Amino acid sequence: MTLSSRILTRLKSSQGVLAAAGRSFSSSTAATSSVGFIGLGNMGLPMSINLANKANDSKMDVIAFDANPTALNLAKEAGMRTASSVEEIGASNCSVIITMLPGCQAVDAVTPILLESSDPNASTLFVDCSTVHPSTSRRWNDELKEKGHTRMDAPVSGGVKGATDGTLTFMVGCDDPATLQQAQPLIMGQRSIHCGTAGAGSATKLCNNLALAAQMLGICEAMNLGESLGVDPIVLAQVMNTSTAKSWSCEVNNPHPVVATDRGTGAAANRYQGGFGSKLMQKDLSLAVSAGADAGVALPVGVLSKELYHMATLHGLGDKDFGVMLQFLRGQKP
Amino acid sequence: MTLSSRILTRLKSSQGVLAAAGRSFSSSTAATSSVGFIGLGNMGLPMSINLANKANDSKMDVIAFDANPTALNLAKEAGMRTASSVEEIGASNCSVIITMLPGCQAVDAVTPILLESSDPNASTLFVDCSTVHPSTSRRWNDELKEKGHTRMDAPVSGGVKGATDGTLTFMVGCDDPATLQQAQPLIMGQRSIHCGTAGAGSATKLCNNLALAAQMLGICEAMNLGESLGVDPIVLAQVMNTSTAKSWSCEVNNPHPVVATDRGTGAAANRYQGGFGSKLMQKDLSLAVSAGADAGVALPVGVLSKELYHMATLHGLGDKDFGVMLQFLRGQKP
Repeated sequence: MTLSSRILTRLKSSQGVLAAAGRSFSSSTAATSSVGFIGLGNMGLPMSINLANKANDSKMDVIAFDANPTALNLAKEAGMRTASSVEEIGASNCSVIITMLPGCQAVDAVTPILLESSDPNASTLFVDCSTVHPSTSRRWNDELKEKGHTRMDAPVSGGVKGATDGTLTFMVGCDDPATLQQAQPLIMGQRSIHCGTAGAGSATKLCNNLALAAQMLGICEAMNLGESLGVDPIVLAQVMNTSTAKSWSCEVNNPHPVVATDRGTGAAANRYQGGFGSKLMQKDLSLAVSAGADAGVALPVGVLSKELYHMATLHGLGDKDFGVMLQFLRGQKP
Repeated sequence: MTLSSRILTRLKSSQGVLAAAGRSFSSSTAATSSVGFIGLGNMGLPMSINLANKANDSKMDVIAFDANPTALNLAKEAGMRTASSVEEIGASNCSVIITMLPGCQAVDAVTPILLESSDPNASTLFVDCSTVHPSTSRRWNDELKEKGHTRMDAPVSGGVKGATDGTLTFMVGCDDPATLQQAQPLIMGQRSIHCGTAGAGSATKLCNNLALAAQMLGICEAMNLGESLGVDPIVLAQVMNTSTAKSWSCEVNNPHPVVATDRGTGAAANRYQGGFGSKLMQKDLSLAVSAGADAGVALPVGVLSKELYHMATLHGLGDKDFGVMLQFLRGQKP
C-alpha cells in the first residue's frame, strides 16, 4: 500500500469535518495514525490546535513539539499531546509530519533529525508550512523523495487571525497534484491551491508578499503625503478604495491611525500591535530578493522594500504590523 | 446675482439628465449660458462630447478649443461648436470654463489669456480637470478669487474608457463645498468627491497615482519573479487576487500577457496600447515627488517609481500602458 493511499484511507473518515476552533479535545491513545506538528509559534499553535480538533473526530492523533519551552507549555495547557524532542516526533511513526518553522535554517536543522530518528522503512508525508526559499523546498523535496517519502511546501496566507479561525489559504507546491488531494483532510483552513511543482508554493507566497510590501509602502506614502497636503485621511482612503489604488492595504489594513479610529480596524487599530510584523515582512522580502537574484530577475522595488523593512526592524519596529511604515516614514514612534 | 446662483439657475434644468455618450447634438445659437472647454486630447475630447450631449437638453452651449489643429478637427468632426483661439473662449462670456490640459505649464499659459480676454465685470467658474501640482491649484484659486471668479480643481480617475463612457470620478478641491454642489450638472461622470479646500483635488489625484504606481510595480515584479520560479502566471494572479496582494493592478489591469490572453482584459491585452501611459504616470509621479519635497514628506518608493517610469519613457515606452513595466524589467520589447 502506497503512502498516498495509506493517508487517504486513514484520514478519509475526517473529510468534511471541521470542529469549531477552540473546542477542547482529548488525545486518543487508540489512534492508529499519528500526525507530528513541529513549530508552535503564533501561527503553529492555533494551527495545531485546529488540527487536533479535527483529529478528535477521526482516527488521527496529533503530537506536537517546539524547541521553545514556553511555546511547548502553551501547547500542553491547551490540552495538546506533546513530545519532548524532534527525535520523539521522528520515532512516533507519524504518517504525516507538519512543520511551521521560522525559516530555512530551522527547516534544514529539523528535517535531518526527523529522517535519522524515524523508521527507515516507513514512508511519511512532510508538509512544510514554513515560509522558505523555493530552492530549500526543492532541495528537501528531492532528498525526501529519494528516501521514499513525499513532501509538499504549503505556506499560508491569512495571518494569526486566519490560523486561529481556521480560515487560512494554503499555497501548495508538490510534484504530483494528487498529494494535495490526499492531504486535504489535514488542511487547517478554507482553501488550498496547487501552485505548481515542488517549490511553487514557497515561490507563490514570496511573490504575494513582495507585491504586498510594495502596496503597503505605496499606501503609507500616499496617506502621509495626502495628509501633509491637507486632505482628510478618511476622505483620501475612501477615494483610493473606490479608485485604481484600491487594495487590501488601503481597504482592510489601512495604516493611518485616523482611519483605524474611524473604522475600528486597520494596521494602526491597536497601535500596530499584532498583525503581520515588520521583521517577518523583512524576512520574506529577503527570501524573495534572494530567489530573484538566483533567477536573474530584477526587483528594484522589492530590494528597496526589503531595506526599508530592515531599517524599521533595526529601529525597534520589527514586532509592529508592517503598516507601521507610515510612522517610520514620518520619523515618529507608533 | 452671484455667479454661484447664476450657474445654479441656468444649469438646474439639466440636473439628472445625462444623454447617452456618442449621441449627436446640435449647437444652439439661442443658448444663454456658454461653457468653454479647453483641451481636447484623449480625455478632453470625449469629456467635452459628453458635456455637449448634456448641454443639448439644457440651455447650456459648449464651445471647445485645442491648440492642436488635429484635435480641434476631431472635435469639429464630432459636431462640436469650436473656437479658433483661447481668446475666443475668453470673449465668449462663458459662465463656466473647463480646462483639461497636459500640466501646470499649460494651465499657467492658458489662464492669464482667459482672464485678459474676458469681460472684467463678469464672474466665471473655472473648473480645472488637469492633473497639476496642488500649489498650482492653490495659486490660481487665490488669483481668480481676487478677481471675483470661482475655481475648483477637479482632476479625474477612470481613464479614456471612463471619459468615453461618462463614468469618471472627479476629485474636487474647492474652498466652499457649495461650489461643487452647484457645478454638479457639469460633472461628466458617475461621482464627484469633495476632497478639501483648493488644491485638495489635485493632491488626492497625485496620492492615488503614487500608491497605484507602487502597486503596479509590485505586481510586475511579483508576476515576473513567480513565472521565473515556475509558477503559472494565471495561478499566481488567481492566488494574489484572493489574498493580501489583491488590487486593481492585479485584478483589473494585470500586466502579464498570459493573464490578458486568458481573461481578454488587462494592461497587456492589446500589447500595452491604450490604457494609462507610462509617460503620464511619470508626470504624475514627478508632481507627487515635488509636492512631497515641498511638504517635507519622505517618498522612497515614490521617487524610485518616478525614476523607473522615467527610464521606461526614455526607452520609448511612454505611450504604452504603465503595466508595460513588466516587459521593461525583463529587458524585453512589449
